[in-house]
Amino acid sequence: MMHIHVLSLFPAMFEGVFGSSILKKAQEKQAVSLEVTDFRAYSGNKHSQVDDYPYGGGAGMVLKPEPLFQAVEAITTSSIKPRIILMCPQGERFTQAKAEELAQEEELIFLCGHYEGYDERVREHIVTDEISIGDFVLTGGELGAMTVIDSVVRLLPGVLGNGESPVQDSFSTGLLEHPHYTRPSEFRGFKVPAVLLSGNHAHIDQWRREQSLYRTWSRRPDLMKNTELTTSEQQKIAQWEKEKNY
Amino acid sequence: MMHIHVLSLFPAMFEGVFGSSILKKAQEKQAVSLEVTDFRAYSGNKHSQVDDYPYGGGAGMVLKPEPLFQAVEAITTSSIKPRIILMCPQGERFTQAKAEELAQEEELIFLCGHYEGYDERVREHIVTDEISIGDFVLTGGELGAMTVIDSVVRLLPGVLGNGESPVQDSFSTGLLEHPHYTRPSEFRGFKVPAVLLSGNHAHIDQWRREQSLYRTWSRRPDLMKNTELTTSEQQKIAQWEKEKNY
Repeated sequence: MMHIHVLSLFPAMFEGVFGSSILKKAQEKQAVSLEVTDFRAYSGNKHSQVDDYPYGGGAGMVLKPEPLFQAVEAITTSSIKPRIILMCPQGERFTQAKAEELAQEEELIFLCGHYEGYDERVREHIVTDEISIGDFVLTGGELGAMTVIDSVVRLLPGVLGNGESPVQDSFSTGLLEHPHYTRPSEFRGFKVPAVLLSGNHAHIDQWRREQSLYRTWSRRPDLMKNTELTTSEQQKIAQWEKEKNY
Repeated sequence: MMHIHVLSLFPAMFEGVFGSSILKKAQEKQAVSLEVTDFRAYSGNKHSQVDDYPYGGGAGMVLKPEPLFQAVEAITTSSIKPRIILMCPQGERFTQAKAEELAQEEELIFLCGHYEGYDERVREHIVTDEISIGDFVLTGGELGAMTVIDSVVRLLPGVLGNGESPVQDSFSTGLLEHPHYTRPSEFRGFKVPAVLLSGNHAHIDQWRREQSLYRTWSRRPDLMKNTELTTSEQQKIAQWEKEKNY
C-alpha cells in the first residue's frame, strides 16, 4: 500500500476530492492511504503563525522554515526515506512519465504552499522533487498536489477496474484519442459515422487510427515524434500537410 | 460578477475547493458565483444512465450526448452566449494568457467528463473551448476545471488583497521568482544570504534579479525569449553558459 501525506494550511480543500470517485475507491481497496496534515499545528509559537515578512522587503508573506521542517520530521518516523515533493511554478513540468515514476514509490509527501512562497531553506534542505503542473498561477499548491495524486493513484495495481484500463489513454500511446460515439445513432440530426455502425472491425480500427493520427497531427504534432507510421500513413500525413498549405 | 457553472457527475468533489481560501473569499466578495450541477439529473431516462457502450466496440463507457445538451440548455437561459469549456487531454494547453483571456468573460460553463470520454457530438456542437492542463491522465475533468477556475478567479477585480498582488508571479514577468527568506535569519545553521539583511535596496534588487535570471536560465530557458536583458546581464548569462560547458 502506498502512503501519501499532504502538508497544507487548507486541509478541508482535499475532502471532496479524496472522498470521491477513484481516490475514494483506491483507499477502500487499500491501494493507498491519503492523509492531510495542517502544518499550522507545527508553528512552534503560541499564535500559530506560519508566515512572516520577507527579508529584503517586498509584497506578500513567506512561509517560515520551522513549521515545515517540524511537520516533515513528525510524519517520517518510519525507516523509509520518502520523496518530498514541493508543488511550485518553478518545478519540473509534470508529465505522465513522472506519474509512472512516482507510482513506484512506497511513500510520498506533498508540500503545498500559499502566500508569496516558501523560505528557500525548505527547498534546499527538505525537498527532493519540485513539480509544476503548468505555466499558470494558482493560489496554492493544493490543486497541483491533488492533480499529481490522482494521476499517480490511478496507476497503482488494482485501482482501475477492467472497463477503465489506462492503456488506450492519450500520452500512453503517443497519439491523441480518436472520437467516441454512443447511442443514439442520430441525435438532433447529428449522425454517428456510418463506419462505426458497420460491424466491420478492420474498417473501424482503420478509421480510429486515422482519426487519432489526424487529431494528433493537427493539434499536437510534438507528440508524434516517436510514433511508428506505416508508409501509407506517412503518405496520408504528407497529403494533409500539402492541403494545409493551400 | 462572473458566473461560473460546472457540469459534473461528482459535484461533491468541488465542495472543499470552492469552500476554502481565495475561491471562498471571491464568492463572499461577490466577484464570482460558483455553481456545480450534476448532469445525471438530465439523463432523460428513469435509470439516470448517462453513459453507454461505444459504437464500434472497445473498452470503457462513453458519455451520452443528451444529458450534456439538456444540462447546458437548462443553464443558459440568459441572453449571454457563454464560453463552454471542455476539459480534455486533447485540448489547448492551459496557460496564464488563457486565464487572463477567460477572466474577461461574464459567464463560463465547464464540462467535466469521466469514463472513456464524451460522445463526439458534444465536442462538435456545444463546446467553444477545449482545455488541457497538461500531458498526464486524470480520472476526470474535475481537477482541471478547479485549476482553471482558481487561476481565473484570482485575476478578477477585488479578489486578491493588497499583500497578494499577482504582478510579481512567475509567468507574468517571464522570469521565475527569486528565492524568498523570512525569519529566523539562521535556522539549524542555515543562514539567510547576507545581502537580504543589509538594508541596501539597490543591492537587494540586483541580487533578486540575478537569482531570477539564474533560476530561469537553468530551469526554464524557454521563458526568457521575451525578457529584456541589459548588456551586463547578457554577459553574465554567457558566463554561465561557458561554465556549464566545462
